Amino acid sequence: MADQYAQSREHDRPMEIPAIRWEEPPEGPVVVLLDQTRLPAEEVELVCTDASTLVEAIRTLAVRGAPVLGIAGAYGVALAAVRGFDVEDAARALAGARPTAVNLAVGVRRAQAAYRGALSDGGDQRAAGEAALAAARALHGEDARASARMAVHGLALLDELLPGGGHRILTHCNTGALVSGGEGTAFAVALAAHRVGQLRRLWVDETRPLLQGARLTAYEAARNGMAYTLLTDNAAGSLFAAGEVDAVLVGADRIAADGSVANKVGSYPLAVLARYHHVPFIVVAPVTTVDPDTPDGASIEVEQRPGHEVTELTAPQVPVVGMEAGGGIPVAPLGTQAYNPAFDVTPPELVTAIVTEEGVVSPVTAEALAELCDRSRQVTIQPMG
Amino acid sequence: MADQYAQSREHDRPMEIPAIRWEEPPEGPVVVLLDQTRLPAEEVELVCTDASTLVEAIRTLAVRGAPVLGIAGAYGVALAAVRGFDVEDAARALAGARPTAVNLAVGVRRAQAAYRGALSDGGDQRAAGEAALAAARALHGEDARASARMAVHGLALLDELLPGGGHRILTHCNTGALVSGGEGTAFAVALAAHRVGQLRRLWVDETRPLLQGARLTAYEAARNGMAYTLLTDNAAGSLFAAGEVDAVLVGADRIAADGSVANKVGSYPLAVLARYHHVPFIVVAPVTTVDPDTPDGASIEVEQRPGHEVTELTAPQVPVVGMEAGGGIPVAPLGTQAYNPAFDVTPPELVTAIVTEEGVVSPVTAEALAELCDRSRQVTIQPMG
Repeated sequence: MADQYAQSREHDRPMEIPAIRWEEPPEGPVVVLLDQTRLPAEEVELVCTDASTLVEAIRTLAVRGAPVLGIAGAYGVALAAVRGFDVEDAARALAGARPTAVNLAVGVRRAQAAYRGALSDGGDQRAAGEAALAAARALHGEDARASARMAVHGLALLDELLPGGGHRILTHCNTGALVSGGEGTAFAVALAAHRVGQLRRLWVDETRPLLQGARLTAYEAARNGMAYTLLTDNAAGSLFAAGEVDAVLVGADRIAADGSVANKVGSYPLAVLARYHHVPFIVVAPVTTVDPDTPDGASIEVEQRPGHEVTELTAPQVPVVGMEAGGGIPVAPLGTQAYNPAFDVTPPELVTAIVTEEGVVSPVTAEALAELCDRSRQVTIQPMG
Repeated sequence: MADQYAQSREHDRPMEIPAIRWEEPPEGPVVVLLDQTRLPAEEVELVCTDASTLVEAIRTLAVRGAPVLGIAGAYGVALAAVRGFDVEDAARALAGARPTAVNLAVGVRRAQAAYRGALSDGGDQRAAGEAALAAARALHGEDARASARMAVHGLALLDELLPGGGHRILTHCNTGALVSGGEGTAFAVALAAHRVGQLRRLWVDETRPLLQGARLTAYEAARNGMAYTLLTDNAAGSLFAAGEVDAVLVGADRIAADGSVANKVGSYPLAVLARYHHVPFIVVAPVTTVDPDTPDGASIEVEQRPGHEVTELTAPQVPVVGMEAGGGIPVAPLGTQAYNPAFDVTPPELVTAIVTEEGVVSPVTAEALAELCDRSRQVTIQPMG
């Protein structure tokens, strides 16, 4: 990643650095990311001056999480357009940077459609670039508002399902402000519960192999003053067995038309545990996560990530060993093969409810989801071209 | 640990260094352990000249795994006896080094009973020490034979449950030669299947937080030329969903009289997944693991281990940071609280079968277990005194 510079900030105010923002310094417009691979040790900004730097940042998970990937995709197209690069090439590269998150492609298409629309309306390159940027900014703002509405709907659902209050919520991966234009998806619901004094405990799965729970969710929970406890993904079963989990809240990377939910690997085992223990399993995601073009769970392409994420330990402070495939510290014997799917798929029958900014779908059926999508203007997906 | 020296060996022959052995160099008798905290990077021996060094080795998991802990406990008592230390003190410290593994206490009691018996029969200190050592050696030999018999019974059970052959076995934690006087428990069954050409794939859960799967089971599988693939504990659900798991094989640290199985944390979620997917969940353990004094799962004391095992990354090669609680590399924000139970408890209704050296119990009931224990002479547990 050549086109970047890094800058550390002090830990002084909660979430001072947004996950993503558009800036226009004298040298020209840039997309600035909070490098999530360096958290919680350091708050480092990653400045992208072209789409290929952003593609690399998406691939290396410097920016990650379904909603913010959509925003990143849209800004990436705008960046290419405003800086005069080939917009169609940039759009293709951005949309393909990670295969499972539908929001990424949706965000890319939206800015791309605005760009094409301006051109076909007779606008010049500059006008088309402004149209793409306006589309990206609109998506960013909508996502922040969607986040707030998901939190309201999710909190109401929790109050309905758990009338006793004092919720003990188990969550997986990271779904807060780092993945969103606002306060996130599942995490935003837990945060809303915390703000009204209804969150007794946030159980944070560490989320192997990349430890987004330990590194990012714990960071966001600590910054927001929430009562949280970290655990290995293995220990969730013990919490369920002890009756210590009132609800599971997770995000989604893609929701198929039948309600199958692709989310961070480890979500499906939680759904099975939740069902076995009669605990609600709730998915919180913006409507853009629903992909009507993916009919069912079997049709969801699950990204397989490199084995070294499992065979080596990596952390922001781990010295780079150099000889190893991933630059981390080997924990398994050399040559060990690893199975490392990034996501798993939870079938609709294990999902108690899907919470979106447009409302709650429960029980989860293809019909109810389709109706929700029809209500939303956000899911006008245009073909990639 | 003052009373130890370390010695590296080359990786030349499979399992050249046994997990534990008794040696009598000119300086006096010692218990020599293969330091499991250094695997797979280095094969380092840990030489214990007194019981307190052995207690420390047990606490730090340099030696671990239910059956070998029994052998270690017995040798520890013998060491104290032969070297003229206070045997009753040593026995108390050894038996209390880890609370969940019943084998440890059983091994300690057996050597202690032999020691006391020799004294009360009029023997001198030297004769009593020899009696304790003979008891420890007997336990060691019995465990090796038990391991071989568990493998035979387990393989027969697999053939019965999975008549098609070509087994794809999922295992958790480490249950091979490193935990045993022989070839282990669950791993010994998989190894037996491998030797008769019936193991298509060994799926190895990495087993957070201490990565015994990645570090130790992968090491043993590689050394034995087995087809194995490592995965995060989170990814097991995806394998079940894809129909890639024919059976789950795990060990046990304690089995209650009702058949509840305490084993490495993460076993219970596998049992729930296995049930949901109609896959056999098989526990392989010597009869000494059954504790008739523990009536049920709720009575099993589960060891809570330090939070830094979760909040920090540690590996044999991780440089010691020093300032941190566990000397590892912090991954979670400082001050993060962690829930870190070492074990979880699987109720008997989720256990398809318990395989022991005396035969197979299936379905798992208190009556069938009690009958098995009656058949075995190994479970004559004497009070601690």
